[in-house]
This record gives sequence, C-alpha cells and structure tokens, in this order.
Amino acid sequence: MSVLIKNGRIVTATDDYEADIFIQGETISMIGKNLTMNADTVIDASGKLVFPGGIDPHVHLEMPFMGTFSSDTHETGTRAALFGGTTTVIDFVLQKQGHSLKEALAEWNSRAKGTAVGDYSFHMAVTDFNEDSKAEIKGMVENEGITSFKTFMAYKGALMIDDRQMIGLMQEVKKQGGMVTVHATNGDVIDYLTAKHRSEGKLSPRYHYLSQPEVTEAEASGRFADMADYTGCPGYIVHMTCEGALNAVRSATRRNQKVFVETCIQYLTLDASLYGDDFEGAKWVMSPPLREKKDQQTLWAGINQGLVQIVATDHCPFKWEQKLMGKDDFSKIPNGHPAIENRMELLYGEGVHKGKITLNKYVEVACTNPAKIFGMFPRKGTIAVGSDADIVIFDPNQTHTLSAKTHHMNVDYSAYEGWELTGKVKTVLLRGTVAIDDDKCLVDRGYGQFIKRNKVSGKI
Amino acid sequence: MSVLIKNGRIVTATDDYEADIFIQGETISMIGKNLTMNADTVIDASGKLVFPGGIDPHVHLEMPFMGTFSSDTHETGTRAALFGGTTTVIDFVLQKQGHSLKEALAEWNSRAKGTAVGDYSFHMAVTDFNEDSKAEIKGMVENEGITSFKTFMAYKGALMIDDRQMIGLMQEVKKQGGMVTVHATNGDVIDYLTAKHRSEGKLSPRYHYLSQPEVTEAEASGRFADMADYTGCPGYIVHMTCEGALNAVRSATRRNQKVFVETCIQYLTLDASLYGDDFEGAKWVMSPPLREKKDQQTLWAGINQGLVQIVATDHCPFKWEQKLMGKDDFSKIPNGHPAIENRMELLYGEGVHKGKITLNKYVEVACTNPAKIFGMFPRKGTIAVGSDADIVIFDPNQTHTLSAKTHHMNVDYSAYEGWELTGKVKTVLLRGTVAIDDDKCLVDRGYGQFIKRNKVSGKI
Amino acid sequence: MSVLIKNGRIVTATDDYEADIFIQGETISMIGKNLTMNADTVIDASGKLVFPGGIDPHVHLEMPFMGTFSSDTHETGTRAALFGGTTTVIDFVLQKQGHSLKEALAEWNSRAKGTAVGDYSFHMAVTDFNEDSKAEIKGMVENEGITSFKTFMAYKGALMIDDRQMIGLMQEVKKQGGMVTVHATNGDVIDYLTAKHRSEGKLSPRYHYLSQPEVTEAEASGRFADMADYTGCPGYIVHMTCEGALNAVRSATRRNQKVFVETCIQYLTLDASLYGDDFEGAKWVMSPPLREKKDQQTLWAGINQGLVQIVATDHCPFKWEQKLMGKDDFSKIPNGHPAIENRMELLYGEGVHKGKITLNKYVEVACTNPAKIFGMFPRKGTIAVGSDADIVIFDPNQTHTLSAKTHHMNVDYSAYEGWELTGKVKTVLLRGTVAIDDDKCLVDRGYGQFIKRNKVSGKI
Amino acid sequence: MSVLIKNGRIVTATDDYEADIFIQGETISMIGKNLTMNADTVIDASGKLVFPGGIDPHVHLEMPFMGTFSSDTHETGTRAALFGGTTTVIDFVLQKQGHSLKEALAEWNSRAKGTAVGDYSFHMAVTDFNEDSKAEIKGMVENEGITSFKTFMAYKGALMIDDRQMIGLMQEVKKQGGMVTVHATNGDVIDYLTAKHRSEGKLSPRYHYLSQPEVTEAEASGRFADMADYTGCPGYIVHMTCEGALNAVRSATRRNQKVFVETCIQYLTLDASLYGDDFEGAKWVMSPPLREKKDQQTLWAGINQGLVQIVATDHCPFKWEQKLMGKDDFSKIPNGHPAIENRMELLYGEGVHKGKITLNKYVEVACTNPAKIFGMFPRKGTIAVGSDADIVIFDPNQTHTLSAKTHHMNVDYSAYEGWELTGKVKTVLLRGTVAIDDDKCLVDRGYGQFIKRNKVSGKI
Repeated sequence: MSVLIKNGRIVTATDDYEADIFIQGETISMIGKNLTMNADTVIDASGKLVFPGGIDPHVHLEMPFMGTFSSDTHETGTRAALFGGTTTVIDFVLQKQGHSLKEALAEWNSRAKGTAVGDYSFHMAVTDFNEDSKAEIKGMVENEGITSFKTFMAYKGALMIDDRQMIGLMQEVKKQGGMVTVHATNGDVIDYLTAKHRSEGKLSPRYHYLSQPEVTEAEASGRFADMADYTGCPGYIVHMTCEGALNAVRSATRRNQKVFVETCIQYLTLDASLYGDDFEGAKWVMSPPLREKKDQQTLWAGINQGLVQIVATDHCPFKWEQKLMGKDDFSKIPNGHPAIENRMELLYGEGVHKGKITLNKYVEVACTNPAKIFGMFPRKGTIAVGSDADIVIFDPNQTHTLSAKTHHMNVDYSAYEGWELTGKVKTVLLRGTVAIDDDKCLVDRGYGQFIKRNKVSGKI
Repeated sequence: MSVLIKNGRIVTATDDYEADIFIQGETISMIGKNLTMNADTVIDASGKLVFPGGIDPHVHLEMPFMGTFSSDTHETGTRAALFGGTTTVIDFVLQKQGHSLKEALAEWNSRAKGTAVGDYSFHMAVTDFNEDSKAEIKGMVENEGITSFKTFMAYKGALMIDDRQMIGLMQEVKKQGGMVTVHATNGDVIDYLTAKHRSEGKLSPRYHYLSQPEVTEAEASGRFADMADYTGCPGYIVHMTCEGALNAVRSATRRNQKVFVETCIQYLTLDASLYGDDFEGAKWVMSPPLREKKDQQTLWAGINQGLVQIVATDHCPFKWEQKLMGKDDFSKIPNGHPAIENRMELLYGEGVHKGKITLNKYVEVACTNPAKIFGMFPRKGTIAVGSDADIVIFDPNQTHTLSAKTHHMNVDYSAYEGWELTGKVKTVLLRGTVAIDDDKCLVDRGYGQFIKRNKVSGKI
Repeated sequence: MSVLIKNGRIVTATDDYEADIFIQGETISMIGKNLTMNADTVIDASGKLVFPGGIDPHVHLEMPFMGTFSSDTHETGTRAALFGGTTTVIDFVLQKQGHSLKEALAEWNSRAKGTAVGDYSFHMAVTDFNEDSKAEIKGMVENEGITSFKTFMAYKGALMIDDRQMIGLMQEVKKQGGMVTVHATNGDVIDYLTAKHRSEGKLSPRYHYLSQPEVTEAEASGRFADMADYTGCPGYIVHMTCEGALNAVRSATRRNQKVFVETCIQYLTLDASLYGDDFEGAKWVMSPPLREKKDQQTLWAGINQGLVQIVATDHCPFKWEQKLMGKDDFSKIPNGHPAIENRMELLYGEGVHKGKITLNKYVEVACTNPAKIFGMFPRKGTIAVGSDADIVIFDPNQTHTLSAKTHHMNVDYSAYEGWELTGKVKTVLLRGTVAIDDDKCLVDRGYGQFIKRNKVSGKI
Repeated sequence: MSVLIKNGRIVTATDDYEADIFIQGETISMIGKNLTMNADTVIDASGKLVFPGGIDPHVHLEMPFMGTFSSDTHETGTRAALFGGTTTVIDFVLQKQGHSLKEALAEWNSRAKGTAVGDYSFHMAVTDFNEDSKAEIKGMVENEGITSFKTFMAYKGALMIDDRQMIGLMQEVKKQGGMVTVHATNGDVIDYLTAKHRSEGKLSPRYHYLSQPEVTEAEASGRFADMADYTGCPGYIVHMTCEGALNAVRSATRRNQKVFVETCIQYLTLDASLYGDDFEGAKWVMSPPLREKKDQQTLWAGINQGLVQIVATDHCPFKWEQKLMGKDDFSKIPNGHPAIENRMELLYGEGVHKGKITLNKYVEVACTNPAKIFGMFPRKGTIAVGSDADIVIFDPNQTHTLSAKTHHMNVDYSAYEGWELTGKVKTVLLRGTVAIDDDKCLVDRGYGQFIKRNKVSGKI
C-alpha cells in the first residue's frame, strides 16, 4: 500500500515548505519536490496545509466517574478524534484505591483493545501509592510502555494522594525514568467550599465554579513544583487554567527548574461568564472550571513564552441526561465537557487564524510536544521520513460551524454550538491509511493500536 | 550539480531520524529512505549527525573599534565560521553619530562584498536616532533586507542612544515590521566605575570585570523590556550573561510579554575566575565580562525553560599585540574574544555531550532560532525540502583539542586553548557546495552571499 | 512660659493613652495622670486626640519653576501648614547647573529666614554633580545640617543627573552619613512622549498624564534601587504613585535591601479620572500624575505592609492664572498642586476614619517617620518628655468641608473643593507656643526656625 | 506602693529620651524631667536603658509532647523569663483530637493558675476543627480573652489539621475577631522524609534537619498566605526560619495582603552547622530546624524591611536525659530548645550591639509588636502613662557569659553555652513590683496573672 500526497504546504513544529510526501505501508518514506512514483492513492493537497496528526494527551474515554461513565467509548471517542484531526490520544487508567495498578490496566485494556479506531496510549493514575504500587512502577515503565503517572491533589477519598505519597512516588518514578503529572488543585479547600455552598442552599452550576477559586489551583501548582524540584522528578501540570497557577511556574523558573504545563482548548477560548443563573452552565461544569478573560490572555502568552507546552482537551463528555443528575445539586453534575473532536480546529481558528500563535507553534503544542514529552517521538508527532504517516490535510480557508448536529462525539450537546471557525480538517491519514476523508470515516472499529511509550528525561 | 548524503542521522530543531538527502543546485530537493539517484557527489554519513548549518547572529568582522579593527575580516571570519560548522553569520553595521545609516551600510558593503567566504547578513546599529535616521528605517527593511536594529545602552558618546531615542526607534521599527536588539548594560554606571578604578590606579584586566557588575546588566535589561512592552515593539537582548538579567525577563513574562534572549557560548562555559592578577585575563576582556558559575547554571536552565532562544558568540577577535594596547590600562584593551569557529563544537561538547541540552535543542538555539527570529527562515536554519543545502556532517564521538595552533581565526591565541571536546565537524555544505571537508576549505573568497532578511513579527 | 494640656487622648506612632501634658518653654517636661501644676495656659483636650505636629518632608515654597514661582512663600506656606496641623516642613534647595550648592542654599536662606511661620528644613537637590559639588557634600552634612540629597532622574537639561552622577553622588553621600532621595521617573521617555503628543496636536492636560505612563516610574524606581543596593547608600524614593513602582521595591527586598518610600496624599485619594477633556484637569497637573484606583489600593496596602513609610504632599501650588500659562499646551502648565494644609486632615478622614490605617500608623507616616528618616528625631515627630512641644489637638468627630474659600494657602482653587471630611485640627502648638487655635494663627511671620538635621543610617 | 525610676534612658518602639518614671500601684502614672515626689522605692537608672518588659508570644511550658513534658513549668519558665527581661509570655493550650477546646483550657489552667511567677496568656491550638470546636471559638474570644488560634500544618494524626479545616477555621475566626496563627511546614513531606531516613538507618540528629528541608516551610507558608488571603482572615506565621518562606510572604504582598511573621532568636543567631555527626546536635533538634547563614541574613533584613514583626523563642526545653530518648533515632528526640531567658539579651547583643537593628526596632519586635498583634496593648508592651509598669532596666555595656551553670531555666544545658554578650538585664519590674534585681527573684510563685486579650484587626 502506498500513498502520494502532492503539492501540500507541509508544516511541522519547525518547518514550513511545499513538497510531496510518499508513504509506503504505515510510514513516510520520502519527501521531495515533484515526486513522480506510482502510488496506490494520490491525494492532491494543493492549497492545503499538511501537518502531523494531532495528539491529545488528556482524554477520558468510558471512564467510570461519579456513578456513571463518560459517554464516549474508546471507539466513539477515537473516531471523533480522527474526524477532528487527532490521530492519537492518551487516556487515563485509574487505579482503584486498595487495588493494584495491574488490575486497573487490565480493566482499561478490556475496554480499549479491539475497539479503538484511532491510536491510543495510557497514563497510569496512581491513586493509592504504597509499597505494593511502588513495586509496580518499574514494570509499567519497562514492560507496558506506560511512563507517565498521574496524580490528583484533589478528590480526597477517591483519587487524591497526599504529599507524603507524592514525594514517594516522585522519587520512584524518577528512578525508573518516568514523569509525574498532576491535577493540581487543593482538594481540601474545594471540599470545604463545596460543602459550604451546599449547606447554604447554593446549588446551581455557578457554585461549582465558585467552589474552585483560582487560589486553589495556584497554591497546588506551586506546591507540586516545589516537590518536583526537591525530588528532581520531571513534572507536568495538566489542564492549567489561570494566571495564578502560571505565575507559580514562573516563580519556579527562578530556581532553574523546568515544569511542563498543559492547558486545554476550553481555557483558551471560553470563560466563566458562561456560568449564569440557570442550569445551562452544567455544560461547562468541569474541574478546574472556566476562568476569566485575563486568564485566557495569560495562557496564550504562556504558549508564546515557552512556558505552556501543550494544548489538550481533558475530553470527558456526558450527555445531557447525565448532566441532569446534578440538576438540584452542582456537586452531582458529572464533571467534564466534550472537545476531542474540536481541539485542532478551534486552536487553528482561534489561535492561528486570529494571529495569536504561529503555524509552527500550533503544530508544536497540538502534535509534537505531546509526542516528545510523553515518549512517542519520533514515531508520532511529526512529518519526517520514518515516522508514522499520521497526517492531516487541512483547508486553512474553509469556514464551518460547530454543532452537536454534525459532530461525531457521543454526546447530545456541543460546548461550542454555533461557533464559526476558519480552517477545517479535510483528510486524515493514520499509519498510512486514509482514515477520514470528506467527513467520512474509512477505518473500522479496532483499527487503533496501543502505543507503547519510551522513558522520558524531562528535557525536550 | 547534485549531492547525495547517505545514511546520516538527520537532526533538526524538531526531528531526529535516519535518511538520505538529495541536493540539486543550492537547495535540498528530496529526503528519503534509500535514495538511489545518481549524484555528482555522494557522501557517506553513516554514524554521523547531519544537521543544518549553524547561524551565528552576533559577530563583528573587521570592525573599527577602540582605535583598531577586529582582526578577522569578512573573509577570514566567515571561513573560520565554516570550519566550525557555521554557514551564515550576521555582522553589525555601525552608524557613525552624525552620519546616515546608508553611509555606514556602504562602508560595510565595501568590506564584505566579494570577500566573504560564508553567507552573511547585517544588523544595523542605530547610534544616532533622529529625524533623518528615522526616515531611513523603512528603506532598510523594505529595500535592503535589514530588519533588525541594534542599540547600545552603553558607550556614551560613541554608540549609546538614550531612552528617548530608544522609544522613538522602537515605535518606528515596530511600524516598519522590524525588531530592536540591544546591548543592555547601564553605560553611565560602567563609565563611572571605570573612571573610578582608573583614578585609583586599579588598571589590570580584572577591573574591566569589576567595572561592569551584574547590576548594570540586570537594570538595563529590565529597562529595555519595559520600553519594549510599552511600545509593543519586538525586542531582543544580545549577549545576556547573568541571573539578574534573566530574572528581569522572567518578571516581564508576568505582564504577558515576550522578549527574545541571546546568550553567547562563552557565558555558558567560562567564568570570571579567569580574571586573575596578571594581564592574561585580557584574553577574555569583553563586554559584558564573564560572570560566575551560578550564572552559567541560570543560562543553561534558561535555554531549557524556553527563556533563552539563541546561543551566539559576539565574536570580536583581537590579536595579542592589539590586546597589549591596554597593558597599562584595562580600559584600553580592545573588547572581544574569538569564538566564531568554536561555537558549534563547544555547544555540542559542553551542552549535548554532557547532557545539559538535547540534540534538538542544540539545533534550535544554534541554527534554527537565529534564522526564524531574524527573518531568514525557511531558507536558512533547517534541513527541509526547498531550503538552502547548508548542512553540517558531524562526528558525535570524535574527540579533539581546541588550540590557536590549529584554528582558522585570524588571531594568535585561543580563548579555549587546550580544551578537549567530544564531537567534531567533518564536512560542511553551503548552498549545495562542499565548503569544508576533512579540515580543508574548498570554497573561495567571495563565495559567501549577502542574505536579505524578511520582516519579523516577534513570534516564532 | 508653660502650658498644661488636660485630659487628651495622646497618640504617638506607638502609644495611645489618656494623660495630661505639661510643657515648659519649648519642650515637653512631663506627662502624667491628673497633673495639677500651675501653667500659664491650660487647654482642655477632653474628647480630643493629641498627637505630634505633622511633618511634611516634601514641599516647594516660592520655588522658581517653569518661568514662575510656586505661589506659597515660606511665610504663607508654613502658615497654611500650621492651620492643617503640620508644624515642620522640609523644602527643597535647587542647585542651578553650573553653580554651587552653597549659592543655592544662600538663595533659599534669603527667602526663608525671618519669614517662615512654622519650622522648616531643607533638602539639597543636586542637579550638577561634579568634583566641585562633590566637595561640598561634607560641609552640607556637617555644618549646615542638611543630610538628604535630592536627585532627579527626569527634567533633562534642567534638574536631571545621569546614572554616572547618581552612582558618584551615592558613594559620596554614603561616606558622609547622608541619604539620597530621588524623583524616580524616566525623563528621556517622558520627554519623548511629551514631544510626540505635542507634535500630534494633543495639547490638553490629559496628555500630561499620558506622557508619564506607569512604566516610566516603575523602571526608574527599580533602577534607583539597583544603584542604591550596589553602592550601599541609604535611598528614598519620593512621591511614589503606582503599583509598578512599589513592585520594583518589593523585588529589591529579595536581595535583603531596604529602600524608603514616600507617597503623597493625592496619590492615595485622587485618581486619573480627573483628567478629562477640558482644561479643568490642569488643577492636578503634577509629576508624576495621578494614577488609577488599583494604585491607590496598592499604596494603602504598602503603608500597612511597612513598605511605604511616609505620606507627604509635594506641595507646589500655582494660581489659576499661572496654570493658564499652559492653556494651549499641557507642557507649559506649571506642575504641582496645593495640599500642605490638607494632608493631615485628609489622611485622617480618608485613612483612619475609613478604617484603612490605624491611628498609630497615621502618626507614624505623617509625623514620626519623616522625623526619623530625615534626622530630626527625637526633637520632632513625637510626644515625649524632652521633645519639642509641637502638638496637634484634633477633634476626631467634627466634620468640615475643604474649600479654597476657607483655606489659607496662597492659591485660588482647592484640589479637594467640597470634600467633606471627618476630623479637624483644633489647636496647634509649635515649640510650646499656641500657634493655631480655633482657626486663627497666633504666631507671627518669622516665628519658624530652621531645623538642622542629623546624619542618618538608613535604619529606623 | 510607689516606685520612682530616675535618670534612665527610656526607649520604646518609637521614643528614646531621658526622663524619670513614677509608678503608683501597678501602673505608670507619670513620666517627666526631674521628678521629685516621694516613692517607696527609688531606683537610679543613670547610664541604663529603660524599656518595656519583653513579651515572648511563643513558649511551651510543661507541655505534654512526644511522651514527656517540656521541662519548664509555668513557675520555672516564667521565672526564668523574668530573669531575662521577659515579663509576659503566651503559652499554647493544645486541644486533644476528639476533645473540646474547653477541656484543654481547663487542663492548662490547672497547671498555670497560682504557679506562674510572670504574667501569661494562652493561644488556643485547634487540632480538631469540627462543628463542635467551631462553636467554641466565639466563647474563647469573648469570654476567655483568647483571640489567637494556632494551627499545625504538620504532625499528622496528632496536631495537624487539613486545609479544609484551615479554611473553615479561618472563616469562623475572622467572624469572631480573632487571628489564625500557623506552624507552616508540610507535614506529609516531613513524615515521608523522616520515614525514609529511618528506613535507611540514618538516625543521627542531623537527619532531623535533613527531613525538614527549606521547601517544606516555603511551600506551607505560601499555602497558608493563599488561604488567609482568600478568607480575609488575619494570619500570622510562627517561627519562620528561611528565605524561601519569607519570599512566599513577599509574593503575597503583591496582592495587597498583610501576613504577620514571627521568627525566633535561634534562627537569627544559630545555623545548621551545629548538626554534626554525633548526638550533640540533639540540643538544637527543634521544628523547623536551624537553617543556613543566608537565612539569618534574610531574617535580619526582613525585620528592617517591616516584613518580620516579632522575635520570639518557641521555648520548649528538654533535659539531656529527655533528649536521650532519641539517642538511637532522631525522630524520638523531643523537639525544642531553651531560650526564654536568653531572648532579650541575645537580641540586644547580636542585634543592637552589632548594629543590625536599632534600639527602637529592638523594643518593637521584642516587646511592643507582641502586645499589639495579640491584643494586649496598651496595657502591655510599652512605657506610657497608664500602662502596666512592666519595665526592664538594662545595662547596655555590661558583658556577661551565657551558661547552664548560671541560667534559671529548668534544663541542664544551654543552647548558647559560653556565648559572651554585651548588654545585661539589671532590674525588672512587673506591674509595679520589683521582680528581679541584681540576679535575684523577688516575687513569689503565683505572682503571675493571666492576661485576657482583646479582639484583633490584623492591622497595627
């Protein structure tokens, strides 16, 4: 099987040039001017951008949470991702407290294997760090290709580990060549405020937002950076939303430390004014919640300053009937929103098209850095000879409108209903196969592969 | 004319893969696995790194300064650069106070045209900003391809402009699509300390160092960032040496500002302990002077943090007899040191080989960012189809020793005499022609071309 | 002559208690419960606050400036000060460039001696630092009792010294036991913006404000702190207005430095919304200009944080006909506003009465710190046995209205016209004599004495 | 009963003058020049300093801790305090988890009442914040005169509360007019490191120090400040030791917040080099441990910068036989060191005598601020008419040597054995009675009174 992509404008995190790409089997075998070989498929990419398949390193598929499951399965979620130009996702395996990492991995494998349409990998969320789980870290890194370990500083009693466990985990993970990632918000304070609001009868979605003020994230981000610095463990903060938290990272740079920072597309484009007086705001009940305009500016600047490396989604969709579980109590609204399909187009339309970031930066934060930081490079995340032929052909000029009516995620509302964007995914290749073309999915359930990841160094 | 480079490990700021490169004429036409076309020249790069030609954006060739000229001409300097893997340099045209920018450009052209061996461009140093020179900015950008304007906050009466001129220049340069770069040290304070030390009979080279304390650089860097923020003009600080100055940039990030930072190879590898009690220290009399170990650590960290974008040299060599002009008075020692030939190998040996930075980061700061920040990308600074075939073939394992006996710079001492390095330049191509091979220069005086540069946006 | 003040609530920077005060001659001789001695004058202070006479360390009386003179003479200015509870002021002697400090002092003495009604001292503004003026510093400190040396980083060509002079002055002043104070704004940038606005026909008072943006003050404050740190000279920043500048001081604290900060009553109570579209704003044309609400908050907080030590006025009144000199060009409006009489009542009403600062803090910043920082303590600035009996008897409950109709300053408008304040000066003693009582001045022209000041250490 | 103190140099936090003091009963009734009334006792204070009795707001007397009791009772501790010029101490009542505040108070009352020699008050340490203890806060403030509530961010399972409780406590305490104070170190991290060191067989006292690195204090100090800012509750950090923690407070000032900071005399004068390889270091096993020289410099600077308000002791003595409980395991060494008697003389000798702080600042941080911040002013903490006659007569020139042989604390070693100091306490009055004279204690067990304290505002 071979594919020849002609006349596209190829964009990587570094480069920007016009050339043809020749793909043999699953990988790119040649890039050049005026390639003339015969190919099974020839695609004319004139006037189009040709960039690497997006990687979303923060998604939750069919995740058991708050008494239900996120509504996208590994099948529907990765398929929707493909429609949106994201060819690989990293999902989270959640250890159950009192149980082993292996059990959790087995459970997630049972859901993802043979069902995923796009490629995927797993982070391991360590929710119960003890001598037993400590002993499993090495095997995860060396045998399973799972090199990133997620921690929660919130959700006490369910997911949260305390700082004692955090330090212990960091020391072990560092030793084994992995990285610790963190949901950095102060769970105790959030629990207090949540309980307080509920006891005062303040039950609308807006109080979800008011129960997680900026300070809870700023504090925890600084605390995590402090512990990472002390242990020397590579550290990564997921879904950063606000100025206070980024300032904590800025302060950490003064002691010559590097902490990786991920934000999500919603924190760059939406703000807390969406939390009004009615239940509509439930669509955007997620943790951390949306913030203010000034925080959006800080995050865009952080990308250009090299302080924010990745734009992900924290995709965790729930259907409206699921959201309604919290109709009378914000604390029962399943947390999360759908974005896996929208990330690449939103970031292009709101970021590149509006002049906030360059095209190279776009590819860097949406495709390349996720691969590099999480140990999938150079197989994934770039357009280079030898790399997987995960390629997006993108029309930078086509305008279109986001809507639940047309999206492919398994959720009955869009967080961006009616948004008009400039720039649209046209064709997507995954490992040399045309997976999406002209709004049709051409690959089957089970096409997606699990991607084992390499050890990481904390330097890119 | 065609060249085929086989089996190398190609490294760009983003990528790292094995493939062959086919060059036709001056540019790269194809990259692929197992290329089999006929070529005029075939180079076996097995076991070698293949990366873009280095770009040194801060050199002073045959510069009139302190009553003499820097000892490398455009011929000897660019040739030495090629030996060291640097294929393009950016030299500084210095306006004379009371004269026009055009006159200065004509003078520099008269020295460089037809003599340079490697490619070169010019920054325009604006030393007298007034209505006349303001009117010349547009032409420099649009007609001459000179889009960066250097300023000096030191050297009052010779090169320095005051803050009033700085603000005026920034507003005009921003309007025309250029960037303002700066020698950011507080000239007044340095002048005072210099005069004081001299009046006290403190005349050895060590007092050059003591006349330019860290605070003079930290203060001016912060002041420049403030003015750049106020005007919105893209700003770039040359030859940053110290923690205090980088902290000023870190503070600036809090207001969502981006300032580009260049350090030089000497500030990463040498320190002020070289300024002893005798005249030997004159070898490293440069401005700013060498700093402390803690500053080296800050700068390496700054590179990894994304706060320092470029490693240059501020190459400005003077022979020992010239240095002796200041035998009895440090203030008469011509400022500068030779490094144009050593930069790429030093940065590899001390940075990559010792694990301080990754190979991609190496290419980014030594090759790619200079091209991007200064408007020569994608023609220069990468290995991609369509780009100039400026290529270094590098043996990552060969050890060698730096010495004045073997270097090609026109200066009779080495600032790094006897340093043993791992990693050596083997072959260098410039625009498709083998310029250096096996320690021999194969191109002639005059082969180098002037590179017109594009407008810049302050985003990369 | 003796005075007995009965039953007052005595407040110092530290204390707060009820007692009687017995004054013999010019000083306080006894403080106690139920004092019963005979006195020439007995004052019943029941229900009143009794605090030290205010000290305003920043006033300009009969100052030649911008082609005219500030409209209060040493007579009218110090008399108005007394009405407002300020018993001592520090005026500025301005060296003329090209002339000696002594000449300037002689000129100021000729105006102040025998005319001042209240006590006064002088700062020496060094506008031309050279070998000659350097040689005069010692005499100023040791013979004249002038231990503070004012510098201007703005007003190039008239008052400004450059950083070379600044460093030199600091080293000499430190040696002699004095302090350097500074008008910290970037004169070059202000000159540029002023010229630019004028050339664009933007001539209303509002452009005075827009020509001195926050960055000009923040930058210069940081630069001054840097130089003070380098030289080790005690440093004091006058009339600080904004968050940016106070943040520069906060940053300086990280290197274990102490810089004294003065703000003025107008920056705590007025804001830039007063600069409208018409000429009315000329009333508040001063340098630096009024800032924003957020800056007021920062300055009040700075007082409570111990980062701002003094609240002064920069009193420099001009009558409306003088302000009209700039009717068609903001740059010709004499800079300054009248406040010498209003400071103590405004600070009480807006600060203490509204709960922003405590009563002790009020006395500290308005009375005691000026005496301590400038070397007049314990003679001035407190109520203690042996100190000058400079005492204000203040009704904390009386409300009154500020107005040009009723004030005693020689200026025909009030910057606070119609403001209703709670708390009013009732009786003022200066060196044991009742100077003000019931809105009448009971002492004559010439009663005021020049106060020689002591060396200072930079610690209080 | 009356006392007349003649000819002393009276020093308060503000003042410094020579006068006589007349005391009637327990309070000061008159201060004046040449007082001539008859008094029961006349003291000649010529050549002496006369300042307010010291207040040590951080002591632990007969505290149950780590299976033993601190070795000074309320009797021996307050008596030793008097010998050292400290007339009032604030001890800590420790709630037992699962029990009420009232029970704890009753227990402490049973030990202190009728036994204390000097005056004392209590902080209430809330170690179990729940609905029951929340309901007790109001009564503590309004009925018991206990207005400060201590929290521990360390000692999990014994004293520590989590952040959820912290926020809840802050909101309640703010409502009732109190203040929250904190032991700010990250208990989880310390527990981890302690366990790790023990498991590795690292058992000497030095590992106590290495188990509590600077980051554990810096992190927690910042976290506490964040929570105090969010809730608006007045906050106070006890026993701050290091630059990292003070920098956290500096950062907090940028959001216009005021946090009170206490350091202790040992952190200003001792450093971690005392933790050697043998068990000797057990003398200084305390939490937080001693730090580095650079931290001492930061703390002295912090005092002068107005960022550190109080110098206390955290006096918590254990005899050598008690310290030996941890002979084979640093984690079993009772934490604490004796200093209650030495604080005033050490701070004078090391601070005032060596020029680090002024005499007024000395009184401010050792006597006045503790009274003001904790609601005992003006009864305690100053020399003013109407205040308690708690007075120290101090010889600023006498040198003496600290030693366990001569001190009065109930502990058989001195943490400062052999230190020679300049400045010695000569006579101490407590509420008008001579308590100490010429190294003899003249008041009996039970003379000390419990001091009810007032509500506080967080402003001084």
